[in-house]
Amino acid sequence: MSTIVHKYGGTSVADCGRIRAVARRVAACAKAGERIAVVISARSGETDRLIGLAHEFSEEPDARDMDLLVATGEQASVALLSLALRAEGLQTETFLGFQAGFLTDGNHGRARIERIDPDRVRRSLEAGRVAIVAGFQGISPDGRITTIGRGGSDTSAVALAAALKADRCEIFTDVEGIKTADPRICRDARLLKCITYEEMMELADTGAKVLHSRCVELAAKYSVPLVVRSSFDEGCGTWVVPEEGRLEGSVVTGISLTTGEAKVAIRKVPDRLGVTAQIFRQIAKAGIDVDLIIQNVSQDGHADLTFTVPKGELRRAMTLAEQQAREVDAGRVEAAGDIAKVSVVGLGMRGHAGVAHRMFEALAAEGIEIQMIGTSEIKVSIVVDIRAAERAVRVLHDRFGLSGIST
Amino acid sequence: MSTIVHKYGGTSVADCGRIRAVARRVAACAKAGERIAVVISARSGETDRLIGLAHEFSEEPDARDMDLLVATGEQASVALLSLALRAEGLQTETFLGFQAGFLTDGNHGRARIERIDPDRVRRSLEAGRVAIVAGFQGISPDGRITTIGRGGSDTSAVALAAALKADRCEIFTDVEGIKTADPRICRDARLLKCITYEEMMELADTGAKVLHSRCVELAAKYSVPLVVRSSFDEGCGTWVVPEEGRLEGSVVTGISLTTGEAKVAIRKVPDRLGVTAQIFRQIAKAGIDVDLIIQNVSQDGHADLTFTVPKGELRRAMTLAEQQAREVDAGRVEAAGDIAKVSVVGLGMRGHAGVAHRMFEALAAEGIEIQMIGTSEIKVSIVVDIRAAERAVRVLHDRFGLSGIST
Repeated sequence: MSTIVHKYGGTSVADCGRIRAVARRVAACAKAGERIAVVISARSGETDRLIGLAHEFSEEPDARDMDLLVATGEQASVALLSLALRAEGLQTETFLGFQAGFLTDGNHGRARIERIDPDRVRRSLEAGRVAIVAGFQGISPDGRITTIGRGGSDTSAVALAAALKADRCEIFTDVEGIKTADPRICRDARLLKCITYEEMMELADTGAKVLHSRCVELAAKYSVPLVVRSSFDEGCGTWVVPEEGRLEGSVVTGISLTTGEAKVAIRKVPDRLGVTAQIFRQIAKAGIDVDLIIQNVSQDGHADLTFTVPKGELRRAMTLAEQQAREVDAGRVEAAGDIAKVSVVGLGMRGHAGVAHRMFEALAAEGIEIQMIGTSEIKVSIVVDIRAAERAVRVLHDRFGLSGIST
Repeated sequence: MSTIVHKYGGTSVADCGRIRAVARRVAACAKAGERIAVVISARSGETDRLIGLAHEFSEEPDARDMDLLVATGEQASVALLSLALRAEGLQTETFLGFQAGFLTDGNHGRARIERIDPDRVRRSLEAGRVAIVAGFQGISPDGRITTIGRGGSDTSAVALAAALKADRCEIFTDVEGIKTADPRICRDARLLKCITYEEMMELADTGAKVLHSRCVELAAKYSVPLVVRSSFDEGCGTWVVPEEGRLEGSVVTGISLTTGEAKVAIRKVPDRLGVTAQIFRQIAKAGIDVDLIIQNVSQDGHADLTFTVPKGELRRAMTLAEQQAREVDAGRVEAAGDIAKVSVVGLGMRGHAGVAHRMFEALAAEGIEIQMIGTSEIKVSIVVDIRAAERAVRVLHDRFGLSGIST
C-alpha cells in the first residue's frame, strides 16, 4: 500500500466548489487503496485579506502577530476540506502545523523547519484515515505559531513526505505541470514529462514560478519523487526526479525569464587590487544578493563595474554603491530597472560544449543585444533589454528545438 | 500590583476601530500599573460567517471540524489586538487556548475545562507584557482544538482569573452592566452597582442574557470578583460578588423574562402511584430539561399534567409525551409555544415572606392570568401568555420598587 502526500494550493481550494472537487479527487485515490496525507494552503485571497487587516494597525506588523493571523487561513482550509471529505464518506483527521509535528526555529515569517515528528500523522494513515495537514506553518521551540515563508506549503508537503518516507509527493496546482517555457510567452511550449531536481532548481531560481527552489532542494535531499500536476484536470503532470531516474534527455530542458532584477553600474572604478572586493563586501554585509557581475576591460587604469540585484533592493544597493564609489574614487553610479534575465537550463549541457555560443548566435541573428552573461554547469543566463525579453525567450525556445509534442 | 483579567466580547472587537478602542483602554490600565491578561472573542459576525461556510458542506458538520474552524475567529482577534496594543507602545504576548494551558475534555463544541495550567501566561505578566488569550477554546487530552460552548469566552476569562488568582475579572460588553430588568422592556430599569453570584445565576438561568450562569457559577466557586461593564463608555458597571460582600439589599433585585420555553400538557393522566414518575423518567432519559411542572387536583381518578421544556426540544418532548400517554392510558397531549416565563429574583426573599403573594396580587390587578408557578429560595417564576409578558415585567418592576436612581 503506497503512501502519498497530496498538496493543494490556494487556487485549488479557492471556493467551496473547488474544495469539493479536491475532496472528490482525494476520495478517489483513497478508495483506490492509497494512504493519503493532504497538505493544504489558505484559500486564495485569504492571506492577502488577513495581511490587509493587519496593515490597518501597523505598516510593519510584528512578525509573531502576523504568523498567528495568517495561520488561520490554512486552519480554515483544513477544517473545510475535512468536512468535504466526510461528505464523500471518508474518515479524516486534521492537523495544524504543531499537531503534525512541524518543529521550526523561531524566525517568524520565514521559519526553517528543524525537524518533523510525523508519528501522529502516520498513526492516522495507518488507521485508514485521510490526514489533512495545514501547510506553511509550524511551532517554534518556545511554543509559538510560526510560518515558513518562501516556498510555503509546497515545502511543508515535501518535508512531510520525506518524514513519512512517502512514495511520492504530488503538488496540485493551477497549471498542467512544468513546461519548456512560460506558455504565455511561447504558445508552443511543451509539457515536460520529467525533469531532474537540479534542472528544476535552476529553473525555479531563474524565474519559473511553478515550484520554489527550496521545496525542490528538500525533495532532492531526501529523494522524494515530486509530481507537479493540475488540480483541474486528469493530466499526468511532470515528474521531478533524481538524475538517474531520467532517460537520455535533450541538451536544453527549459527556458526561464525573470524581470525581478535591476542593474547597477559604477563607472571608472580604479583598477587596483582589492577595490572590487571591497565594494561587494559592503553590499554583502547589507544582506543584498548580487547575481550577475561584469567588469569591462581596463582602460587608463579604470574599468566599469556592473552587477544585478533584486529590484526591491535597488534603492539600498544604489546608496551603498554611491558610498563605495566615493571611497574608492570611482566615477558616477547608474541604475537601470528595464532589464530582464533569460536563462537556458539543461543537464545535457554538461556534455555538450557550445550552448552559450549557439545562444549568442541566435540572439545576434535577431538583433537582440546581450548586456550581461552568467553561467553555471547546467545553465546559461543572459541579461537583455526588457523590451526584447519575450522575443529572446521565443528565439531560444525555437533554436533549441523545445517546441512540439511531448517526448 | 494587581492582576486583572479583561474580557472583550465580539461586539467590542467588531471592527478595526473598536479593536483600537479596546487597545487604548487596556493600555491605560497597563500604564496605570496593572498586570492585565485580556481574553478576547471572535469579531462579531465572524463565527456566523464560519458556520455558514461549514454548512456549505454539511447540514450537521462534524463537531471536531467545526471546533477547528470557529477557533480561527478568536485566533484572528488575538493577533489583531496584539498589533493594536503594540501600536500603543505596549509589549504583548499572545496565547491560543492550548498555549494558555486550557485543558478540556474531548466533548467537541461543548467541552468542559478540566484544568488550566497558567504558568506561561503568568510568566508573561510578570515580565511586564500584556497577555492576550483566545477565549472559547482549549485542547483535548488527545491534542485536538476544542471549543467550550455555553458561556463561551466569559467562562474562559473567569477560569483564567481563577487560575491566576487574579484580583478581579472585568467583562466588557455592549451594555452598561446588570439592570433590574431588560431596559428595552422597562425604560426605567436601574443599573445595579452590585449583585450576588446567587442572584446573578438565577437571573441568567431565567433569561437575563448579559452573563451566562456557567461563568457566574465558576466565579462563585473560586470567589473571583466579577465586574460587568460597557466597553463603549467609562461607566463603573455592576460588581458580581459573594453575599458577604454586599450591604443590606432590597427584597427583590431584578426581574428576568424568557420566551425560550414551550408548554406540554397531558390530559387525564390516571392518578396511580408512579405514573408521573414514569413519564418524566422517559423525558429525562432523552436529555430534555423540564423546568416547571404542575398537576391539577385529581377528578374521577384523573389529573392534567403540564410542564415546560426548551422550545427547541418541543417536537421530541411531544413525541415522548404521546408515547407515554398511550402507555399509561392517559388522554390527549397538547402543546403551546405562546408562553413566557417571568422571574423575580432577590436574596432578600429568604427573610421576607409574601413575595409570591404580592406578585400574584399585582398581576391579578392588571388582569394577567398566571398559568404556572415555580419557586426557589431566592426566586419566584410564573408562566403567562406571551402577549402579556412584557406588561407583566413592567407591573412587577413597579410593584417591587425597582425603578429610579441607583442605590
